Amino acid sequence: MRRLLNLSLQDKRQFLESFDYVLTDCDGVLWTLNEPLEGTDRAIRALKDAGKRVVFVSNNGAKSLDSYQKQIAGLGHSASEDDIVYPAISVVRYLQSIDFKGLIFAICSKTFMDILRKAGYEVISGPNDPLPESVDIIVSTIDDKLPVKAVIFDNDFNFNHMKLFRAELYLKNDPNCLLVAGAISPRIFVTPQVDVTGMSQYLSVLEQSTDRKAVILGKPSPRLAEQLKNHLKITQNQRVLFVGDMIAQDVTFGRAAGFQTLLVLSGGTSLEMVEALSNNGNVPDFYTDSFADLDRLIQDATQNIKDATE
Amino acid sequence: MRRLLNLSLQDKRQFLESFDYVLTDCDGVLWTLNEPLEGTDRAIRALKDAGKRVVFVSNNGAKSLDSYQKQIAGLGHSASEDDIVYPAISVVRYLQSIDFKGLIFAICSKTFMDILRKAGYEVISGPNDPLPESVDIIVSTIDDKLPVKAVIFDNDFNFNHMKLFRAELYLKNDPNCLLVAGAISPRIFVTPQVDVTGMSQYLSVLEQSTDRKAVILGKPSPRLAEQLKNHLKITQNQRVLFVGDMIAQDVTFGRAAGFQTLLVLSGGTSLEMVEALSNNGNVPDFYTDSFADLDRLIQDATQNIKDATE
Repeated sequence: MRRLLNLSLQDKRQFLESFDYVLTDCDGVLWTLNEPLEGTDRAIRALKDAGKRVVFVSNNGAKSLDSYQKQIAGLGHSASEDDIVYPAISVVRYLQSIDFKGLIFAICSKTFMDILRKAGYEVISGPNDPLPESVDIIVSTIDDKLPVKAVIFDNDFNFNHMKLFRAELYLKNDPNCLLVAGAISPRIFVTPQVDVTGMSQYLSVLEQSTDRKAVILGKPSPRLAEQLKNHLKITQNQRVLFVGDMIAQDVTFGRAAGFQTLLVLSGGTSLEMVEALSNNGNVPDFYTDSFADLDRLIQDATQNIKDATE
Repeated sequence: MRRLLNLSLQDKRQFLESFDYVLTDCDGVLWTLNEPLEGTDRAIRALKDAGKRVVFVSNNGAKSLDSYQKQIAGLGHSASEDDIVYPAISVVRYLQSIDFKGLIFAICSKTFMDILRKAGYEVISGPNDPLPESVDIIVSTIDDKLPVKAVIFDNDFNFNHMKLFRAELYLKNDPNCLLVAGAISPRIFVTPQVDVTGMSQYLSVLEQSTDRKAVILGKPSPRLAEQLKNHLKITQNQRVLFVGDMIAQDVTFGRAAGFQTLLVLSGGTSLEMVEALSNNGNVPDFYTDSFADLDRLIQDATQNIKDATE
């Protein structure tokens, strides 16, 4: 693991020439909740000018394509549908790849559900509202025997026990009913100071009670890496730089995919956490303070070339 | 493990004389959801006539003292407040024993909460209703910095992620905030055909994310056994017969407490499950089809005495 800006000039040039794709996480890397991170815009520009393809790979299941495009536009860049990868679209691509037909029961955000519906799927969900504390009413409401053929599980702030109960019954009642998950983090950083349990534990509860393993299409699932490689026509894994702020999602994902990995310290990972990583763990190839440092690196590497050619 | 009615006449008499207390689970033993189980009324009568003290020990957190008393009255018996033990009352007794003062955040049924309030505690709860999918609104709603001094966790059909989120923050914000649980089953049998994940996994999620261990006052917690022994002035554990239909809750509880244990097959445990128990596991001392068999056993044992004395 090397600190990016501490590389020698020669190593910086070599690094810059070692990849064609920059796949980058968004939250905590390009922006915090609503604010772009300083210098990100220039770094994307510099990468594009250096001939790199920049693709945005987020685990955020509460955002639409439109809102991703707007947020990227806020950085002064445009991104096509193919440049933005997020759980709902990965799930849709997966369902299309297996020619899925049938009713979907979804535990996810409204936006995620809208994307499924827009792709032509029939989706049911809920209950969101509390139910009367009567077993009879609950069972008759939940155990509806609808012909659900896929349970889809993603981050849902309004996750509740009754949704899990429904999912459990659909999966138990039909061995052919699929269990598909988007991005399910063990922790959700709601603010830099406040993080809470994410949805991955709830998915584990569902997996245990139904004796199933979910098909996962968010980071760090290798299945997402395969989908990305096919979709972006990546043939040489090593010529991809994966940038992220989370060890468990981003570094693990990038390493398992065979990509080069760059961890940035602008989000959920501190320098202390990086220093505590053991060498056999999920150690990124490089780390640096922020995505903006890629601009500085490119300046250094190319300035050096200009100097040499003048 | 012996089948109760297969005992020899001598063993039946010896067994009948070996206990003074019958502590019995309720759901699946005395009644199913709303229906009394056949013969239970006569068995309780026979036990009382034989001089045994019968105490009802349930893990059902959605019922009030009044509703327990009514259901027992439906079996033709009366039960005082001291004869009925259920999670809310065990939690109240625990809080009283440590002279607890302060605000309580509760994840439990309305009935459970009413019992806490009736005991004089100030209790907050929720949210039950879904929240807008906005991190800002959620954080400002949940992270309320109220001086909560105990989080109480029991079965709550309307359990949701936001309640866990609140509990997590109270526990993290105040190292002196207690975590107290009532009865938390790994499975809930909503009907004989339909069982779903219970709340114990959610409590585990909370325990993991806050690095706490809950003080548990439902079966099979040994802490409940201690409370019961004190309250009922039990001095010889072996002179208690604990009757239940669940291996994980009732048999484990009874064995750990040093009681004799009788498993009945009228609820959540089948003969196949009993036969599959290994000898070093949670094997009950006795098993039988139903609580009503205790009536038959007493008839056999006392008939024999009558025959002998005639």
